[in-house]
Amino acid sequence: MLTDPSQKYRPLSPVVLAERQWPSRTLTQAPIWLSTDLRDGNQALFEPMNRERKLRLFHKLVRIGFKEIEVGFPAASRTDFDIVRHLIDAGQIPGDVTPMVMTQLRDDLIAETVRSVAGARRVIVHFYNAIAPAWREMVFGMGVPQIIEMVERHITLFRRLTDAHPETEWVLQYSPETFCMAELDVSLAVCNAAIRAWDAGPQRAMIINLPTTVEVSTPNVFADQIEWMDRRLERREHIVLSVHPHNDRGTGVACAEQAMLAGAQRVEGCLFGNGERSGNLDVVTLALNLYTQGIAPGLDFSDIAAIARVAEECTALPIHPRHPYVGDLVFTAFSGSHQDAIAKGLNAQKGDAIWRVPYLPIDPKDLGRTYDSIVRVNSQSGKGGIAFLLQRDHGITMPRRMQVEFSAIVQALADGSETELTSEQIWAVFERTYLAPAWEQTRFIYRGHRLFEHADGQGIALEMADAEGNIKTVEGTGSGPIAATVAALGQSLRIDSYEERSLGAGSDAAALAIVEAAMPGVPGSRFGVGQHANIVTASVLAVLSAAARFSPPDETVG
Amino acid sequence: MLTDPSQKYRPLSPVVLAERQWPSRTLTQAPIWLSTDLRDGNQALFEPMNRERKLRLFHKLVRIGFKEIEVGFPAASRTDFDIVRHLIDAGQIPGDVTPMVMTQLRDDLIAETVRSVAGARRVIVHFYNAIAPAWREMVFGMGVPQIIEMVERHITLFRRLTDAHPETEWVLQYSPETFCMAELDVSLAVCNAAIRAWDAGPQRAMIINLPTTVEVSTPNVFADQIEWMDRRLERREHIVLSVHPHNDRGTGVACAEQAMLAGAQRVEGCLFGNGERSGNLDVVTLALNLYTQGIAPGLDFSDIAAIARVAEECTALPIHPRHPYVGDLVFTAFSGSHQDAIAKGLNAQKGDAIWRVPYLPIDPKDLGRTYDSIVRVNSQSGKGGIAFLLQRDHGITMPRRMQVEFSAIVQALADGSETELTSEQIWAVFERTYLAPAWEQTRFIYRGHRLFEHADGQGIALEMADAEGNIKTVEGTGSGPIAATVAALGQSLRIDSYEERSLGAGSDAAALAIVEAAMPGVPGSRFGVGQHANIVTASVLAVLSAAARFSPPDETVG
Repeated sequence: MLTDPSQKYRPLSPVVLAERQWPSRTLTQAPIWLSTDLRDGNQALFEPMNRERKLRLFHKLVRIGFKEIEVGFPAASRTDFDIVRHLIDAGQIPGDVTPMVMTQLRDDLIAETVRSVAGARRVIVHFYNAIAPAWREMVFGMGVPQIIEMVERHITLFRRLTDAHPETEWVLQYSPETFCMAELDVSLAVCNAAIRAWDAGPQRAMIINLPTTVEVSTPNVFADQIEWMDRRLERREHIVLSVHPHNDRGTGVACAEQAMLAGAQRVEGCLFGNGERSGNLDVVTLALNLYTQGIAPGLDFSDIAAIARVAEECTALPIHPRHPYVGDLVFTAFSGSHQDAIAKGLNAQKGDAIWRVPYLPIDPKDLGRTYDSIVRVNSQSGKGGIAFLLQRDHGITMPRRMQVEFSAIVQALADGSETELTSEQIWAVFERTYLAPAWEQTRFIYRGHRLFEHADGQGIALEMADAEGNIKTVEGTGSGPIAATVAALGQSLRIDSYEERSLGAGSDAAALAIVEAAMPGVPGSRFGVGQHANIVTASVLAVLSAAARFSPPDETVG
Repeated sequence: MLTDPSQKYRPLSPVVLAERQWPSRTLTQAPIWLSTDLRDGNQALFEPMNRERKLRLFHKLVRIGFKEIEVGFPAASRTDFDIVRHLIDAGQIPGDVTPMVMTQLRDDLIAETVRSVAGARRVIVHFYNAIAPAWREMVFGMGVPQIIEMVERHITLFRRLTDAHPETEWVLQYSPETFCMAELDVSLAVCNAAIRAWDAGPQRAMIINLPTTVEVSTPNVFADQIEWMDRRLERREHIVLSVHPHNDRGTGVACAEQAMLAGAQRVEGCLFGNGERSGNLDVVTLALNLYTQGIAPGLDFSDIAAIARVAEECTALPIHPRHPYVGDLVFTAFSGSHQDAIAKGLNAQKGDAIWRVPYLPIDPKDLGRTYDSIVRVNSQSGKGGIAFLLQRDHGITMPRRMQVEFSAIVQALADGSETELTSEQIWAVFERTYLAPAWEQTRFIYRGHRLFEHADGQGIALEMADAEGNIKTVEGTGSGPIAATVAALGQSLRIDSYEERSLGAGSDAAALAIVEAAMPGVPGSRFGVGQHANIVTASVLAVLSAAARFSPPDETVG
């Protein structure tokens, strides 16, 4: 029996909109972009970004081409305050980029916010308060007149504070939070009160930003709400109309696109849709959707993988393999008929001609991705495919950084031979790279080891043979077999991480040990792998493998 | 400098649609659902589902409430043929469920398809061919008249073949593939030819299915295309109008919703949006979006986590933590003001009253999820939070099944004490569960071990103390220390997986070993953990921990 929770929900009343225009329009230009990765995106992370990651992402956003960036909530966060002041005082904000800072409507917070940004060339200060019925009644216990009075009073204070800093160009952004759930006439009254209080005009720039704080309707309703407001806002020619979509119903991109048709000139969102709950609007998808409409987005995603890496590192959240444009699988065709059609289309595609390759909505090259990863699964350069084949056919789970290292090795080989690599060939590269050379490249061949107790901890005696078959035994001690092996080698190897797992079921299944090692004076790290039924032997072999990968073939260990 | 790839793309010409109706309508009922998880979803997997996984997913889809399920492409896949025949011959298809099978327009494939399903009570046979200009010109080299003739000829053949099987109710589904990129008058001509060739009518059911094979326009354009077709299709009252959205522009859900407003009665898609490239329409999001419009979707997602688990296991693809409704983070509020508003809203929410809790578009209970995971990050029951805290504060990476095991243990504790659990408390539970009890519960306290060489492989001598301090030594041998330890314990423990990794940098960092163990007669598996600077000692402790977790406190080992 099906439950029916639908009885406890009610849809919003539809918008009454005479002579609706937006569905008859087409997109003709890119919006003004506002990245809220450092604010709305950051507040929804398990571990909010520290100063270093925030600055790193800020500079990345600048390089992508964002001209407006919400930097944080300086009155609520000491980190945010310090970062904003640092960016301004150190002159790190390019001349064509405007930072935005957010504040709630409280006298002390507004004063602190002004202090955080005073002296900037140009700055947007973002005021917001929730106005929908559920919030008015349950959260604030305020009526509409009180809401309006509160907005007017705080904007008036802000005018007074900013008049004292004429060296800065002050822009006010007002967001009626929960707009999509509020009565339109209430939204209009509050926004118009804000516009009058700020005295928006040619010299007093202002943004009205309308959010789907929580998506509650089909996306055409949001477009209707935007067109309704667009027609009625006071001093409309002096207002930048902005939208801030969320994604609770999975329709954030649609809401943004249709709102643009309805009059929105500016869009707020995050890279790859990060943000509270189901996320903010994904600005990357929205921007790349513009490509195929023949519109330049004004943002540079020509190396989308590099941007994805920074975003993943800063947010500690993954990007889904089917995420539009950026996911590992979106330029991979699995079906034979798709592969055939794509091959014919690529063949027919001439130089600068209009793009019309079947099943590829966009040329992967425009995003710094390659054709190779499209049709030939077994030779695809993406690390996803290689990692998958090793996992499926050999039970090997590579750490992420090792996937990067190994994919470059495979890729170099694939580029050289121009052939498709099979799973067996990938395995052969893996074996040659990590398993086989451990003792041959070093001219010392592992013959065995013996553990012994030692006052300093674990002792190990390694038996190695040289090319002529002469046996040499080297000894070392440490807290365990790995440290002891490193000591026995007598090299300045540093083990940065170690993992080991069984390759199948059963207590006598072989184990695969993987170590990540570094060597003073050599940039980066290298991985070593050992495989053996005895976990100790596997670990020893992994250390030898890593050591070998740092050694030129004619050097020796010991 | 920004590149400008937009120059090589052109948008589709807009649809000319007089007196557009769809934006003024609201959703009033659920569509007919067609799951294509076993076909379109399956063909886009690295490793297509085997028979066991396909049957498992089929039965899960039936339990969710799908009444139409595309089972596969029997003429192209022996596995699909066998599965369809098995479902029919073994009577495994419920009386109210209709299977669908797909075929290309080729005489032999159509005949084989009819053979694969003959004898079923009712079956939908799905014909498709691409009709857009790029495909006609580059892939097939055919004009529109040839396309129409080809469709007519194969449907006529299909009529003749099915007339020989009157015991089965045959439904024809025709999909003009690449519909969204084709000229509307071409789509209409081909569909009307198909309708006439099948002689659709009261006794001859037919579905016209219009796909966004590749999304190329803003979602309002697709709705226009659907409304245009809806008004013009012949014998409209005898046709079920269906849509099959993809998600290349991230607007699959919006296309489906707005197509429903425009006249679509049926929707095809996959659980959580699996499928080629950026995926098919996500039927789960579309269905749950209906809840909040006060419409019962007719699908049961009251235990969404269980459905997510089956989908993840069958597809080997993850579900993103911000995926609407199902993602680990979508019912987690991070911002203090959101938490405060939610608390007030939950407090004000009475029994069966209409749902209006701020920031929660849907009651998590309707999906089998809990309030606990919403506001209190540190006590959230979701395994995401617990795993994160153990990872962040203790460097522990739990295997996925262990996360499930441990989250249930933590959850039971949180429910009992009604308090918030801090990271420290979660760590204490982890220690008590996995690290501390290894020897205390078994009444034998690990005192040390000694490895020795043995003809059978690795030997181990375990020294254990009982509660009175008496030392007992037990010995075992095996292929390595783990197998030897299991042998020494003398229990019928089976080790199913093993992994070990360092907890920090440096070759003397402590290692954490995790084993998954099973015991005959005890359902499921249990995990054991050992931590020690020596990887051998960590492994031995992990085996002892797992053994202890199978032992009631008053039993002994050895």
